[in-house]
Amino acid sequence: MKSRLLLLAVAAAIAVTGTPARADTQTSDGAAIRTLYRQFAAAFRHRDTDAIMSLYIHDNTLFVFDVTTPRQHVGWDNYRADWKETFAGMKGDPGFTISGLSVTIGGDVAYTSSTQTVTGNLGKLHKLAVRVTDVLRKVNGKWLIVQEHVSVPIDINTLKPDFLSRP
Amino acid sequence: MKSRLLLLAVAAAIAVTGTPARADTQTSDGAAIRTLYRQFAAAFRHRDTDAIMSLYIHDNTLFVFDVTTPRQHVGWDNYRADWKETFAGMKGDPGFTISGLSVTIGGDVAYTSSTQTVTGNLGKLHKLAVRVTDVLRKVNGKWLIVQEHVSVPIDINTLKPDFLSRP
Repeated sequence: MKSRLLLLAVAAAIAVTGTPARADTQTSDGAAIRTLYRQFAAAFRHRDTDAIMSLYIHDNTLFVFDVTTPRQHVGWDNYRADWKETFAGMKGDPGFTISGLSVTIGGDVAYTSSTQTVTGNLGKLHKLAVRVTDVLRKVNGKWLIVQEHVSVPIDINTLKPDFLSRP
Repeated sequence: MKSRLLLLAVAAAIAVTGTPARADTQTSDGAAIRTLYRQFAAAFRHRDTDAIMSLYIHDNTLFVFDVTTPRQHVGWDNYRADWKETFAGMKGDPGFTISGLSVTIGGDVAYTSSTQTVTGNLGKLHKLAVRVTDVLRKVNGKWLIVQEHVSVPIDINTLKPDFLSRP
């Protein structure tokens, strides 16, 4: 393959395909993105809307399919309102963990997948595991989430969402 | 922004941010990706598993969060079985349309979002609109889907999936 992609698995296993780029730069990018997810987790545990939103591109190009309705969010302001409502619906400090984080970097674009598990008093639920796909871009040296997709799978037989399914 | 990204909206509105790359190459890439989605739609309407699967990277790196359980599919063979089962669950030739397709290209990585609507005899449903995020890579000159996320949103009040929601 001719791709200059760098695959960074959660355990820091590294595979470079095709034309090698500078490893230190790639490692630095991978580390920066993993740091972003640590900041994301800390922000979630403190229900800190401003801290969460500092990790997303701050303009109208941000595009999100969130786990709950409405179908989509377009723009930073719109998604900020969604996060504010999400955090308002929780009592206390929720538990939050990210598992199975996969990070792939190609130039100044990166994409990730992970499972994010929330526990605590979440309104009608006490535990919720969501699947998350992010696309990130390196903007002025800083990686930011530019597109996000969060969901739970549906059981085809019952047509009900599976909030707690395991990989 | 220093990004070399090309944003191709569905109506072919084009915005280049940062250092411009060769426009003809970018246009060609955008056209190739739009053609891929036309092929995808035709394959779906004919419930053609082989034709659908020719659009995904044919190795174990393919990673998918599908609309139904299980939580994830890893590898081409695994996702092929999922598509086969999906098509087997339909009677006749389903209707299939893609709307709101957004394509963004950065080098040999691209990412898209769209809403895909299926109509017909779908088992328990007669109409289903799903949200789709794809990441594609250009491999040996051909764009292929390498990561996919398909879902419907959940109504937070009823905790039921919204199969027919509109943007």
